[in-house]
Amino acid sequence: MKRAVVLLSGGLDSATVLAIARSEGFQTYALSFDYGQRHRRELDSARKVAASPSAEKHMVIKFDLSEIGGSALTSDIDVPKDAVTPSTASAALSASSALGASGASATAGAVIPVTYVPARNTIFLSFALAWAETLEAEDIFIGANAVDYSGYPDCRPEYLRAFETTANLATKAAVEGRMKFTVRAPLINLTKGGIIRLGLSLGVDYAQTWSCYDPRPDGRPCMRCDSCAFRAKGFLEAGIEDPIL
Amino acid sequence: MKRAVVLLSGGLDSATVLAIARSEGFQTYALSFDYGQRHRRELDSARKVAASPSAEKHMVIKFDLSEIGGSALTSDIDVPKDAVTPSTASAALSASSALGASGASATAGAVIPVTYVPARNTIFLSFALAWAETLEAEDIFIGANAVDYSGYPDCRPEYLRAFETTANLATKAAVEGRMKFTVRAPLINLTKGGIIRLGLSLGVDYAQTWSCYDPRPDGRPCMRCDSCAFRAKGFLEAGIEDPIL
Repeated sequence: MKRAVVLLSGGLDSATVLAIARSEGFQTYALSFDYGQRHRRELDSARKVAASPSAEKHMVIKFDLSEIGGSALTSDIDVPKDAVTPSTASAALSASSALGASGASATAGAVIPVTYVPARNTIFLSFALAWAETLEAEDIFIGANAVDYSGYPDCRPEYLRAFETTANLATKAAVEGRMKFTVRAPLINLTKGGIIRLGLSLGVDYAQTWSCYDPRPDGRPCMRCDSCAFRAKGFLEAGIEDPIL
Repeated sequence: MKRAVVLLSGGLDSATVLAIARSEGFQTYALSFDYGQRHRRELDSARKVAASPSAEKHMVIKFDLSEIGGSALTSDIDVPKDAVTPSTASAALSASSALGASGASATAGAVIPVTYVPARNTIFLSFALAWAETLEAEDIFIGANAVDYSGYPDCRPEYLRAFETTANLATKAAVEGRMKFTVRAPLINLTKGGIIRLGLSLGVDYAQTWSCYDPRPDGRPCMRCDSCAFRAKGFLEAGIEDPIL
């Protein structure tokens, strides 16, 4: 049975990607990170998502990005509220429609919010690559999306292709010709609504997932951060209620 | 004053690179990793090297690669002994002479030893990139060497160039046009002897450094692992005694 490493934040995108990898017949190795994120609560969701139905293994790697800082998610910078509205969401959508064969950057000219975490996906993919090499898993799945997203540069197709090239130069198994790594981002061109519809068709239980960057003191999602806004847009488009609300 | 992030293992290569960065007028930010390495003793050396003369800051990021394993340095695989001899060292040298404009791989056809740690430099460079972005440091220094080395794929120029490309697609500061990251590997084409001679000219105190992968119970270097062998070759070529012996 082919193996795949799946980056699993506990959000709805990565939960969907895990289901996609399973549906393609992969034995899945889910990888999460406890990196000092403000919304550590997402790790509880990651554990639930990885447990049911069960991934072959779920690893949580711990390190602390708060000393590096530079992000509202890892330092005391405030998480922006009410920044993503229907109009900015559709601006992101039209910017991202320039993506494709040209490899044009969806973020050019756009404002990347302070919730960006420096080099986060590069760090995450690097650990995924290490694990993939030891597991002899050629496929690394990531829930990157370049449509309904915050414009993070490390979610774009051109970035993912560059990482893949690096991965195949970096590793013993690739250089020896035994493996060729592929970074798979099956959600890259889907809307949030499309992601949810796909996930439902694969049996994803979105009640297990968590998206909010800045949970309220009572533990409920703030409903005002970008991540809440994109999630709400997705459930609206999919025509169903968000089961965590 | 320009800032640079310098990857600092505590070995002789990275100590030399730190001195090079200083000599070029950079304010240096040294970065080390406590990753579950068998030779954690190198971190004591990293602290000494970073302290005298003092780097602006020395950060040690902790995570555990032993659960990922796949290496003699992070799992219970034995560290190979007596594998690097004068003849294999010169084979590495002639293989690496194929490097250059062609970007040919020095490791093609060579045996990469089990001390290879999956994706290690990609993980290290990813954290360096994150810190560099928050520091507004465009230069990331690494002591990679593709002459007197163990054939690790993530020490080769073509790998470093690919990572640099990835870095400039991954980051907010690069995508917004405010920064352009450069991965600097000033030792890449030097012999071990050449590295030591350069370091001595810059005042490096090699008594502070540590290279052995598998220290003896009495705390002294084993003198039989690849890293000890390359170090010994270097001091022999430089015509001086190794101060740690």
